[in-house]
Amino acid sequence: MRIEIVAVGTELLLGQIADTNAAWLGEHLAAAGIPSHFHQAVGDNHDRIVLALRTALARSDGVIVCGGLGPTHDDITRDAIAEVMNVGLQRDEAVVAAIDAMFRTRGRAMSSSNLRQADVPEGASVIPQTKGTAPGLICPVGHKVLYAVPGVPYEMSDMFDRGILPDLRRRMAARGETTGVITSRVLRTWGMSESGLADVLADHIAELDIDPEAPAAPNGAGAAGAATIAFLASGIEGIKVRITVRAEDDAAAGVLLDEQESAIRAVLAAAAGDVVFGVDDEAIEHAVARVLAVDGSTLGLAESLTGGLAASRLVNVPGASTWFRGAVVSYASEVKFDVLGVPAGPVVSEEAAKAMAEGARRVLGADVGLSITGVAGPDPQDGQPPGTVFVGLAIAGRETEAVSFSVPGDRVRVRQYATIAALDLARRRVGASPPGP
Amino acid sequence: MRIEIVAVGTELLLGQIADTNAAWLGEHLAAAGIPSHFHQAVGDNHDRIVLALRTALARSDGVIVCGGLGPTHDDITRDAIAEVMNVGLQRDEAVVAAIDAMFRTRGRAMSSSNLRQADVPEGASVIPQTKGTAPGLICPVGHKVLYAVPGVPYEMSDMFDRGILPDLRRRMAARGETTGVITSRVLRTWGMSESGLADVLADHIAELDIDPEAPAAPNGAGAAGAATIAFLASGIEGIKVRITVRAEDDAAAGVLLDEQESAIRAVLAAAAGDVVFGVDDEAIEHAVARVLAVDGSTLGLAESLTGGLAASRLVNVPGASTWFRGAVVSYASEVKFDVLGVPAGPVVSEEAAKAMAEGARRVLGADVGLSITGVAGPDPQDGQPPGTVFVGLAIAGRETEAVSFSVPGDRVRVRQYATIAALDLARRRVGASPPGP
Repeated sequence: MRIEIVAVGTELLLGQIADTNAAWLGEHLAAAGIPSHFHQAVGDNHDRIVLALRTALARSDGVIVCGGLGPTHDDITRDAIAEVMNVGLQRDEAVVAAIDAMFRTRGRAMSSSNLRQADVPEGASVIPQTKGTAPGLICPVGHKVLYAVPGVPYEMSDMFDRGILPDLRRRMAARGETTGVITSRVLRTWGMSESGLADVLADHIAELDIDPEAPAAPNGAGAAGAATIAFLASGIEGIKVRITVRAEDDAAAGVLLDEQESAIRAVLAAAAGDVVFGVDDEAIEHAVARVLAVDGSTLGLAESLTGGLAASRLVNVPGASTWFRGAVVSYASEVKFDVLGVPAGPVVSEEAAKAMAEGARRVLGADVGLSITGVAGPDPQDGQPPGTVFVGLAIAGRETEAVSFSVPGDRVRVRQYATIAALDLARRRVGASPPGP
Repeated sequence: MRIEIVAVGTELLLGQIADTNAAWLGEHLAAAGIPSHFHQAVGDNHDRIVLALRTALARSDGVIVCGGLGPTHDDITRDAIAEVMNVGLQRDEAVVAAIDAMFRTRGRAMSSSNLRQADVPEGASVIPQTKGTAPGLICPVGHKVLYAVPGVPYEMSDMFDRGILPDLRRRMAARGETTGVITSRVLRTWGMSESGLADVLADHIAELDIDPEAPAAPNGAGAAGAATIAFLASGIEGIKVRITVRAEDDAAAGVLLDEQESAIRAVLAAAAGDVVFGVDDEAIEHAVARVLAVDGSTLGLAESLTGGLAASRLVNVPGASTWFRGAVVSYASEVKFDVLGVPAGPVVSEEAAKAMAEGARRVLGADVGLSITGVAGPDPQDGQPPGTVFVGLAIAGRETEAVSFSVPGDRVRVRQYATIAALDLARRRVGASPPGP
């Protein structure tokens, strides 16, 4: 089955938000071996939503429509679907009760406009809501199918996993289609440029060749070279190397991914050392958590340039309270001097970074102190140009060190790069032998 | 003329990148008063690009196709356009010379694969390249038109400004169409639900009636009620109320937007008080900066639950160093006790929030201390369920206060809501009279 994605919302056409739902759905359909050949976006206009849905049904086997299921007057996807299905809308009392209950648990009364969210096209079934008020819809249209989900990303993704994907698999099985799988694994790196990674891996990539849009061939598993490699510069998330393989099932795909991961890790390690910090959703903060857990150490931060950004990433890790003590965000110089005990003098310097790291250890009672100071710009500070970053690292029983580097970009990008670079330094050092002389 | 945007690239379908070109083009078409009713994305497949272009030509007056003009084997947009136009491709020697000259200035030799970029469908004209090697194309198809531009964002935007927009204006003038402008303004709110806002504004909205996707009417300027209102829930950014108006020119649009903004602010203020914290790109941190600047106060934070997230937002404001002292991220309870002077006892409580706010003032030397403590989940803490948040506010010369609330969602969302709610409290209180007894 080929699935088309239709995103509804005038804000998409006007460029007020980019369509991240289509990207998410495309990625997750591909991961399930289900091809998606077309995406559309259309505004909050009844006739044009109807036209977009009919166009999609004409050239694809199924449609996922996102958005326009909210409680307000411009949420008209339900009505457009009813027209395409050539049926009326019926109020579903079970949905009314669920919305009402959701409001009650929050201590609020259900608004009358929410009742529209309980209107369901005749013949459609409901994907129950768990996180919002709008249910999803599964709407048969002849021998094709139309799924509707809210445009709120976490509601959309939840309903895709819980309602759409299982229904799609049932339909594909009934049609005698094998899906196979197209699966990706992402190696996350820090320390090499995107073009540097591409150059180092060029010979390896030249040996590979598959069409990533094609459905999985039943005998795809184990086919030599059934993989593609792509690079994605992701700012605060580092540079991603994505391996995509096509195979008959998850097990066969796993074997191919393992082979590719090993080969790529070997090439990168030979060229640039320990640049791979994580796999898939493992961000740099998870890598830091992992080395701290192995080492049994606690961590405290002193942040100036980054203003709490590094700390706010670390607390995203479940269980952070076992190893993360906290941070002193010493934005004003006096806070560096008075709270962290940094000696008077330039605060964008190797000496200040070291003193901040030691201050973080002492004030926060941590085994490891990590500090970040620098110049976000646009103006220079302490004679240093924008983009200058100093990172300090104080570890019990070792000499405190500081490294400096220069990063490009505006204030936001300088902070993002400084954060990942500092956390990457902690990842490489904690538990490892101290750097040699 | 209604223009459809078609983005070409398998990476878009697979969700490897989001389609920012379509958003940019949609925004700039709207700003020029040119409606865009549909967007499509399609992969690097000849037959499917042809189908997408024919679909677009059937329902729109013109098409802008982005991507697939590069030098490699999967760049096939030129061939697909030639098929849609029912013509052949001809090598344009002027384009060959321009590409060759571009390589020479870079001290490199032109690759033979670049010659494909000089192939132009018969009857098409060229938008000369300035920044890359691929020229753009202007392709008449019957009485409609198809524009092709590279997918590289800065090449695409340059060719839009230089080649597409002037050509579109010529065609619209020849058809006797006036363009006018479609402009939006966003009011950013915190403190009401999306459905609550919609209910309160329902009467106002009922009086308005235009279609924001329609072309500007020649007499649109000043027409009573030429506006639409939409709502957009944006998580950490609050809920946005977007006003869109259509008018003859920017000045007339500004008058309409001012009228609508005043009317909506009045309705909201009467129903719910001071819920509008900003306009357009003004986020909650900018609103906090504004009230602090007026008041001449400095701010210090004590963050537990939010782990530095509030601080990291405040430093995004240019000039934050004049009023932001810093933060103590007291993730471990001992840091609350030892650094901030919180009395022993439950740390998710009104008392702890107040002591943290006062500790932040004292330790960081700030006029205003703001604190956030609570339970991110998934487990309860201090007998409080996940989503429980306490915010403390200590202001020189006033009694320290604390407010508590309950927010839904996972760890990330609890932190986001707690951050905006805390910053919103500071925005409402700083400079205002203390709350009454």
